[in-house]
Amino acid sequence: MSVPVSVILATKGHDVATVSPEATLDDVVRGLSEHGVGALVVTDADGAVAGMISERDIVRVLASEGAGALERPVADVMVRPVTTCRPTTTATELETTMTEGRMRHLPVVDDGRLVGIVSIGDVVKSRIDELATQAESLERYVTGTPY
Amino acid sequence: MSVPVSVILATKGHDVATVSPEATLDDVVRGLSEHGVGALVVTDADGAVAGMISERDIVRVLASEGAGALERPVADVMVRPVTTCRPTTTATELETTMTEGRMRHLPVVDDGRLVGIVSIGDVVKSRIDELATQAESLERYVTGTPY
Repeated sequence: MSVPVSVILATKGHDVATVSPEATLDDVVRGLSEHGVGALVVTDADGAVAGMISERDIVRVLASEGAGALERPVADVMVRPVTTCRPTTTATELETTMTEGRMRHLPVVDDGRLVGIVSIGDVVKSRIDELATQAESLERYVTGTPY
Repeated sequence: MSVPVSVILATKGHDVATVSPEATLDDVVRGLSEHGVGALVVTDADGAVAGMISERDIVRVLASEGAGALERPVADVMVRPVTTCRPTTTATELETTMTEGRMRHLPVVDDGRLVGIVSIGDVVKSRIDELATQAESLERYVTGTPY
């Protein structure tokens, strides 16, 4: 009943905003802003997922170290290991993983390759679409309207 | 079928992290970090909601103005007017409002008074609980197991 991640990505696209571990937090701030996203995936030279860095991580390090922290390298602050999902993971599984882990973004990895990213907003949107379809089906079933 | 905001607040509590319009963004960064939240509600001297300021707003102003922006007052950067909800708003209505408006947090206002805040994470958690209950009811209905 719940759609897989591949269906969500088919609508939202496969683009992922990334940053290298050697970049600075200043670069991250600009990258987040330019891409209009809440987190960047940190990828190494081979394109493999090395970590994640989010708006929240930036705010936390600013709170503890002050504005000078913006010059620090991503590798010092990024979160790892990273929880990822696969194109076959369902929206229901995502909801549980993200809620229990208090995560807002999960990179989608297929056979070691980064193929997209899903946010909690994407999951909610998918769920709304799904519930609307379910409600319609249920109404047809109850009222006996043929499909 | 969908629970009202009052039920969500009964579980998560009525505490709201606030900041005054005269505080600096540096104060906001520390406030967000101390409370472990993604946004603060800006309240004026009377306790009325004057605006909202989030991790995202901080990152955006840092990207455009650099680290010096942390000394700016909240009133310059906060988002207003603020979309709010009421204790009687349902989780389904919240989902739609937050998804369409791309909002992560909604202050809950009752008779002009700030009584709580709901995040997109709270909405997802409530939805999971609700779907689990629905699935159980449906199974009982289909298998004929008495309640």
